[in-house]
Amino acid sequence: MTSIGGFEIDPRLDLVLERTVEVRPALVWKAWTEPEHMKPWFCPRPWSLAECEVDLRPGGKFLTVMRSPEGEDMPAEAGCYLEVVPERRLVWTAALGPGYRPIAGGDLPFTAAILLEPHGEGGTRYTAIAIHRDEAGAEQHEAMGFHEGWGTALDQLVEYVRTW
Amino acid sequence: MTSIGGFEIDPRLDLVLERTVEVRPALVWKAWTEPEHMKPWFCPRPWSLAECEVDLRPGGKFLTVMRSPEGEDMPAEAGCYLEVVPERRLVWTAALGPGYRPIAGGDLPFTAAILLEPHGEGGTRYTAIAIHRDEAGAEQHEAMGFHEGWGTALDQLVEYVRTW
Repeated sequence: MTSIGGFEIDPRLDLVLERTVEVRPALVWKAWTEPEHMKPWFCPRPWSLAECEVDLRPGGKFLTVMRSPEGEDMPAEAGCYLEVVPERRLVWTAALGPGYRPIAGGDLPFTAAILLEPHGEGGTRYTAIAIHRDEAGAEQHEAMGFHEGWGTALDQLVEYVRTW
Repeated sequence: MTSIGGFEIDPRLDLVLERTVEVRPALVWKAWTEPEHMKPWFCPRPWSLAECEVDLRPGGKFLTVMRSPEGEDMPAEAGCYLEVVPERRLVWTAALGPGYRPIAGGDLPFTAAILLEPHGEGGTRYTAIAIHRDEAGAEQHEAMGFHEGWGTALDQLVEYVRTW
């Protein structure tokens, strides 16, 4: 077990993506928390983000609806934020809906954290963690392309915020 | 829908207990957050609290194991705290374990809130809310004696803290 940002990481249950990017934490934060700025980068192309709702407070709604290249919207149930520390720490879960109401959470309920730390001159140490209920959940998420998908999305985020 | 302490209450899904008690919020808080002080009152007698673990921070462990009058311990999975505002607001869930890890949460996963407000001279306005996934969960919790059980526990709490 290693501890990252206060999370006790269990390698059988948790997936971690660690990267350094050349944009400031403030810009990464903005791209992660404002719907109009999430749409351009959140889904690895040719997928896209069809809908996005953000109520940025603990217990507040977080909904993303992904659209396939064929134009089909994936079913999605709203999750909720758990921790909101501007420019540093964003934690949400798909196991609770708005107001912390328990939900079924689909077949892959997970909690996720984005941790940001300033790095060098204008860069960010970026850590994404996905926390699963069981090994099957972690394996399924990995097989769905967690590292590739979240990594590609981060590349798209960087490319997008550099246009600001 | 009514809003209580920021929670949008759905009468089909949520159970609410509202009471005024003649002990200060600071004492109610202590009784709710220190394991040695939870044991004397938490379960309506002749049930008792066999085990109690409290890691009082968002994401921290909250475990209670109830013991029947026959001495049998009920199976229990640890939940976690979501909000901790001393003497005012305690929110936790049985749908996430420590570190916000999604868990099965048994057959009755719910989120609960205890809200405290000073009332008159040395009293407390006490509100307990149980937030369920669906109507079946709320009905089951009500049938298990939510109002009677949580009310009796509160009576026991008041009786206990008056011995301090």
